[in-house]
Amino acid sequence: MTTIAFIGLGNMGGPMAVNLLKAGHGITAYDLSDAAMTAAGEAGATPATSAGEAVTGADTVISMLPASQHVESLYLGADGLLQSIARGSLVIDCSTIAPASSRKVAAAAAELGLEFIDAPVSGGTAGATAGTLTFIVGGEAGALERARPLLEIMGQNIFHAGAAGAGQAAKIANNMLLAIHMIGTSEALSLGAANGLDPKVLSEIMRNSSGGNWSLEKYNPWPGVMEAAPASRDYSGGFGSALMLKDLGLAAEAAMATGSAIPLGELARNLYTLHCAESGGLDFSSIVGMFRHDD
Amino acid sequence: MTTIAFIGLGNMGGPMAVNLLKAGHGITAYDLSDAAMTAAGEAGATPATSAGEAVTGADTVISMLPASQHVESLYLGADGLLQSIARGSLVIDCSTIAPASSRKVAAAAAELGLEFIDAPVSGGTAGATAGTLTFIVGGEAGALERARPLLEIMGQNIFHAGAAGAGQAAKIANNMLLAIHMIGTSEALSLGAANGLDPKVLSEIMRNSSGGNWSLEKYNPWPGVMEAAPASRDYSGGFGSALMLKDLGLAAEAAMATGSAIPLGELARNLYTLHCAESGGLDFSSIVGMFRHDD
Amino acid sequence: MTTIAFIGLGNMGGPMAVNLLKAGHGITAYDLSDAAMTAAGEAGATPATSAGEAVTGADTVISMLPASQHVESLYLGADGLLQSIARGSLVIDCSTIAPASSRKVAAAAAELGLEFIDAPVSGGTAGATAGTLTFIVGGEAGALERARPLLEIMGQNIFHAGAAGAGQAAKIANNMLLAIHMIGTSEALSLGAANGLDPKVLSEIMRNSSGGNWSLEKYNPWPGVMEAAPASRDYSGGFGSALMLKDLGLAAEAAMATGSAIPLGELARNLYTLHCAESGGLDFSSIVGMFRHDD
Amino acid sequence: MTTIAFIGLGNMGGPMAVNLLKAGHGITAYDLSDAAMTAAGEAGATPATSAGEAVTGADTVISMLPASQHVESLYLGADGLLQSIARGSLVIDCSTIAPASSRKVAAAAAELGLEFIDAPVSGGTAGATAGTLTFIVGGEAGALERARPLLEIMGQNIFHAGAAGAGQAAKIANNMLLAIHMIGTSEALSLGAANGLDPKVLSEIMRNSSGGNWSLEKYNPWPGVMEAAPASRDYSGGFGSALMLKDLGLAAEAAMATGSAIPLGELARNLYTLHCAESGGLDFSSIVGMFRHDD
Repeated sequence: MTTIAFIGLGNMGGPMAVNLLKAGHGITAYDLSDAAMTAAGEAGATPATSAGEAVTGADTVISMLPASQHVESLYLGADGLLQSIARGSLVIDCSTIAPASSRKVAAAAAELGLEFIDAPVSGGTAGATAGTLTFIVGGEAGALERARPLLEIMGQNIFHAGAAGAGQAAKIANNMLLAIHMIGTSEALSLGAANGLDPKVLSEIMRNSSGGNWSLEKYNPWPGVMEAAPASRDYSGGFGSALMLKDLGLAAEAAMATGSAIPLGELARNLYTLHCAESGGLDFSSIVGMFRHDD
Repeated sequence: MTTIAFIGLGNMGGPMAVNLLKAGHGITAYDLSDAAMTAAGEAGATPATSAGEAVTGADTVISMLPASQHVESLYLGADGLLQSIARGSLVIDCSTIAPASSRKVAAAAAELGLEFIDAPVSGGTAGATAGTLTFIVGGEAGALERARPLLEIMGQNIFHAGAAGAGQAAKIANNMLLAIHMIGTSEALSLGAANGLDPKVLSEIMRNSSGGNWSLEKYNPWPGVMEAAPASRDYSGGFGSALMLKDLGLAAEAAMATGSAIPLGELARNLYTLHCAESGGLDFSSIVGMFRHDD
Repeated sequence: MTTIAFIGLGNMGGPMAVNLLKAGHGITAYDLSDAAMTAAGEAGATPATSAGEAVTGADTVISMLPASQHVESLYLGADGLLQSIARGSLVIDCSTIAPASSRKVAAAAAELGLEFIDAPVSGGTAGATAGTLTFIVGGEAGALERARPLLEIMGQNIFHAGAAGAGQAAKIANNMLLAIHMIGTSEALSLGAANGLDPKVLSEIMRNSSGGNWSLEKYNPWPGVMEAAPASRDYSGGFGSALMLKDLGLAAEAAMATGSAIPLGELARNLYTLHCAESGGLDFSSIVGMFRHDD
Repeated sequence: MTTIAFIGLGNMGGPMAVNLLKAGHGITAYDLSDAAMTAAGEAGATPATSAGEAVTGADTVISMLPASQHVESLYLGADGLLQSIARGSLVIDCSTIAPASSRKVAAAAAELGLEFIDAPVSGGTAGATAGTLTFIVGGEAGALERARPLLEIMGQNIFHAGAAGAGQAAKIANNMLLAIHMIGTSEALSLGAANGLDPKVLSEIMRNSSGGNWSLEKYNPWPGVMEAAPASRDYSGGFGSALMLKDLGLAAEAAMATGSAIPLGELARNLYTLHCAESGGLDFSSIVGMFRHDD
């Protein structure tokens, strides 16, 4: 059994920690929000009054934070958290951030004799609760193997994308592609409907043809086509449009940093920017409303 | 056994007719090209000297032509082919054309007591040869059932999209979505590679994640990732970029006719226009070359 | 003095005819709308009961119709209006339509011994009323010279773009560019405002710098920057978004017909499609509302 | 007469310093490049061996550096240059960088009792040499007035955009709009040419119509239309495509920082990314080559 410090217990981190607790692991928890701390305490975690206190005595640190600047400012600097973590410990950062930030933290961790992996997730809050997340990991294979038993409690699929930062780069590329085929699927269904097709029939045809993609398979954006999809519950729950926009921003940064052209990815980002101005809180498949004639 | 008139024996129509011949059907064939006529004759078809001659005595007419204007000018008008086809016959148009054109021909056929379906295909010349095409059909269910035994000889999957023109509308929506996720996949792989990822590893991760789509599953655009894909044979064979551009043009027309917004679809069309100016003859997955840094 | 038949007396054609009447020209007028006919009669035109009646005895025919199909169906065919126009007459079509349609009518007119020019206008209803329209003309120089005295009554600037259809092609290219710099200006002002700039100050800077364009000069889209612009009267009057969308559709068709890539033009068209779904009746500069944060 | 420290004597900074020298100002110069230092020395500047040495005894500091990180790392931090500049001095940063970076340096300067303005320029190397640059200034009005005599030696137009960082924000918005209308103009001319128009005639029509913009007025991208434009000398000289791409990257960052949608701006950036992969060294108007059929 591992002693785990868990930093960041929000909508994603909270249920992830609960699954570790259920599996019998001891957790010392820290979050800036009192509500999150209370919930974690009720679930069996030991509350800490600071991140530094949380890592004391832990051999594994897991973090789940909103953005690059939070991760950098947590771990780095003269009084950063890395300084307080016991040599030889394993640090698993599950935040989705810029690959360059992950590489910076990984390098600093290595200098201090720590093992570090970036392990951003997909699967949303539902996957976090059900323990069915996908982890896309960057870092040394040995560190991933050490982390694997914990990741397998919180998730179902674990991919090794490459060296430090590769987990982030792969997650970003994947989510950009997801945004593109979600919008593409929305355009195709709206175009078909405007030309007299039944979106349900068209969905089934494209799903089984060369237009097939994950949106059609698991997450159809048209209301009523797929009972379990957010589209059939007014786009509540699921993966928020604002979170998709954040990931597309990371893609834009990664593209600019490398001189890469991603015309569809950037147009997708701008369409989500327009969409979020009105509907940032809805599931990202709600972007179909931009294209539907009957909407 | 049916007596079939087959009009249009090019790269697609030729092998489709051969499969019908192999299955024991008699075919009277007509094409403007002498070479196509010779090939059809060698395969066992009876050559006709005109489309009108071809349909004489036939109870089924199959056509496979390049574009709307060819189909309209073949069938419609005072001396159009519909006038020469025996009342009660079945007409199967496998061309990929504008839904409005299909509806026009279908209406004229109905007035003359003919059954008509639009049955555009996907699967390329390889599918035509192997008899594994996908047919997306618009028209009456009864006409489709009558056509089904023939379609099953030439293809593997048969979808009924709806009333007259629906086959075209569904095919167009599907191929637009295919173009979008092919370019999206190309952007994602190029972005990943520029950020240090192995395209093969990234492909596998996205294929199994929410970025998953048919391009990653069957037709990876990156050379060397998928042995059987055109990308691994210098983008020869497959589905030409110029043909994809044609289908995207049909999507643009269908969008304009209905006031539909398809921003990703139209950007895809413009990117294929730029690509075709240099590489129209290559398989459509070659568009990845526009984004690869190492290209 | 010329005897003029004027076909199409809507928002544009009506005031254009009035200016010819005021200048002393006799006009026989025809329009499908009773209201338009009444107004033309009150202004001094002689009402005709059909287009055919209108052209009887006229040596000049002017038409101002909504779209390609109206122009083609008016003039062409076995019983088209061209057949009823006296040999040697001048036909001036002021409609904005596809260059290919103009060329078709011009060719048919030439065969019948008529002189024909395409003379689409810009300047909107205000320019039509004030007699300050811009005419962009395609056709023979001689025909343009013959038309010039009439055009100078209705307009201020007359450009000869080239042979038959060239007026349409130039008008389409111009209006596509107008849409692009109007949206570009809207993006730039919104981006500046979001970054703390005063849109009025920024407008003035860009107008005098390399960002300068007609939108900034004459038609600023931001409310309050330019008193006389539609933006300062809730986007009423001016050039409707739906009309701009129509012209962008003509640009798309002209691009597809020639294999031209116009990525910004097509994105502009799709943005206007989205905009028109909500605000088609507002002046086209209202598209700035899509980008403003404070809107 | 002012004693000026000039940091950064590249293609832009070099000729700007020369104009100040010609006007009788003494300059102490510093640049990392030996060649730049030699040239500055030959023009009459006093070479310094470090930036710190350059500012010793100066009451005015002018900097012209490539990017945000260079400006931040020059001025900020415990041993940053601001610490070495005499209290009460004026600092003029002519670099084009992120507004946020300018604001950061301006705040640090204010704390140390220095006056600071951001004064990015447009006009290219030709304008720098001729002393006809445009300065777009952010900062206090008093600081701008103090700087004005120097700016008037180096440039022709001086705009006050607003508070600290506003010069950058306005420059970025302007250049994004320039990129958009340059590409738009290129698309319009290419579309017109493909439809049979003479680009010279079409340019003249649009320049005098609602399509009018600075590209048509001063910088026509089509070879041969405007003798003095880079297009007529194989796109040499002028404003490099790679520099435009840099400015579009600043626009993207400013848009992301404020949640602004700039769909045409971002598509322009992606088109320049594609263009720069092949022609980064050519003038930015060379992007017309992407659209010309005859190219």
